[in-house]
Amino acid sequence: MARGRPSRALVRGIGDDCAVLQVSAGHQLLATTDLCVEDVHFRRAWHPALSVGHRCLARGLSDIAAMGGEPLACFLSLALPTNLPQSWVDGFLEGFSRLARRFRVPLAGGDISSAGQIVADIVVAGQTQPGKALLRSGARPGDRIYVTGTLGESAAVLRRLYGGAHVRAAASRRHFYPEPRLEAGRWLRRRQLASAMIDISDGLSVDLGHICAESRVSAVVRAKCLPVGRGADLELALHGGDDYELLFTAPAKARVPDTIAGVRVTEIGRICHQKDYPSAITILDDNGRARALKPRGWQHFRRQARK
Amino acid sequence: MARGRPSRALVRGIGDDCAVLQVSAGHQLLATTDLCVEDVHFRRAWHPALSVGHRCLARGLSDIAAMGGEPLACFLSLALPTNLPQSWVDGFLEGFSRLARRFRVPLAGGDISSAGQIVADIVVAGQTQPGKALLRSGARPGDRIYVTGTLGESAAVLRRLYGGAHVRAAASRRHFYPEPRLEAGRWLRRRQLASAMIDISDGLSVDLGHICAESRVSAVVRAKCLPVGRGADLELALHGGDDYELLFTAPAKARVPDTIAGVRVTEIGRICHQKDYPSAITILDDNGRARALKPRGWQHFRRQARK
Repeated sequence: MARGRPSRALVRGIGDDCAVLQVSAGHQLLATTDLCVEDVHFRRAWHPALSVGHRCLARGLSDIAAMGGEPLACFLSLALPTNLPQSWVDGFLEGFSRLARRFRVPLAGGDISSAGQIVADIVVAGQTQPGKALLRSGARPGDRIYVTGTLGESAAVLRRLYGGAHVRAAASRRHFYPEPRLEAGRWLRRRQLASAMIDISDGLSVDLGHICAESRVSAVVRAKCLPVGRGADLELALHGGDDYELLFTAPAKARVPDTIAGVRVTEIGRICHQKDYPSAITILDDNGRARALKPRGWQHFRRQARK
Repeated sequence: MARGRPSRALVRGIGDDCAVLQVSAGHQLLATTDLCVEDVHFRRAWHPALSVGHRCLARGLSDIAAMGGEPLACFLSLALPTNLPQSWVDGFLEGFSRLARRFRVPLAGGDISSAGQIVADIVVAGQTQPGKALLRSGARPGDRIYVTGTLGESAAVLRRLYGGAHVRAAASRRHFYPEPRLEAGRWLRRRQLASAMIDISDGLSVDLGHICAESRVSAVVRAKCLPVGRGADLELALHGGDDYELLFTAPAKARVPDTIAGVRVTEIGRICHQKDYPSAITILDDNGRARALKPRGWQHFRRQARK
């Protein structure tokens, strides 16, 4: 289990007009914000409150991980239906707090209001040394492409839920309690191995597309190299979202280990010049045939799964 | 019109997993988050989109002002109904952007989703020198109590709206386009005149109550000294919210001017020992009679106005 140092960053938390944070001397601030909306990002019938609270914070922490940063504090804005049972709120906060405690990220502030459906907005502040944040824009032709963990398992659970199956949260932790890869992200930043990084929240095809667009490169992915997760298939590994794995690139000469911070790392392809392929991402199937991979991502998947 | 320096704090804005901000050397970070929910904080029938966008950012900037801080960047999370006209979104963003430009606060990130009603969560990051933020906890017995501007005008407009009146936004700027008191807040922090500060967002009775609770003091307010705004009365000045004026305390010997950064400043009472009065806040009427002032604030007012 990843453990950071106890937070000394929080000078003044809840109880004033603003929280006051101390960013370490010579460091830059990282900040990310993510919405979790009922019936868009979760359903009360499918997701226990504990899972919703965990996933809410995990989304924010995963963004900090994707920059190779250290989380400092989080802020939570909650709009809740007035008839929401208190037990649901308690469960949500318990799931949120358990993950916050594990990564020593204090809740520094937030807001609360009523609304017709549950809307949670999570803000995570973090820090990194100047110029050391792992951006999406650093991939260069010739770089290798890697992912941590496996892909598609979370989407496979979602497909079963859409299909009417009852899925126990305890048996499908990759979907209900995803693990932000903070330690792996920090390791990559410290070793300066990676040239670009992003977390896979919308699906590999969308998130690798972001790296290609920001780095002005294209990418070739080998289908047979993809670490397809339990219950998933190639389509889900390519387009299913909510994996919260790290997708990064590294120069060909970099010695990227098979495991980082206890998480498996798989080489899945390489970065090319934009002019080499007509599409931003090309996928090579098991027989070496190339086809363009259109970014679809999990919003598309959800629409498909609903049909 | 208040103008800050152009922002050099934003190292990397929209387009990566996190924004990267540079807090000035030796400074501390301020962070605040505020929800704006349709039918709770505004109504589409009453508030033009331009006003909703302005008010959303103004709430966040006012929290930075209340600490005496400098705003660095803002983040906006928006959950919007799928059938919301594009013109409404454009108007909201225009109102938001106009205020952001005036105070040179770049939009550094955010998130977007769908929802049944409009939910906007505004995050503002700011900075101040270590130990110089004006907290709620610094008021001492003997201190004088001051407010900027006038009180109750925004609530007076709300009362008219609840009463069925049509109120033109251009004619009631204090409600539709409140002015965050950033320059006055900074002036007070730089001169080190104030011992405690808060912005009046929930109403004087609630917000002065926060200063008393955090400072472990009580307060006496003179009714005849209150700067009652246009169209308002004593009740609205005491309990109406959304004023976004600064409420601060200063030692009796401090020379607080009549005007700060072009805004009138009024002494309204003094801070006492907790044991001197049975209630946290006591109000003295025009005849010198004392009565306890219960914190009610604008949520209460809204319920009353609806009856």
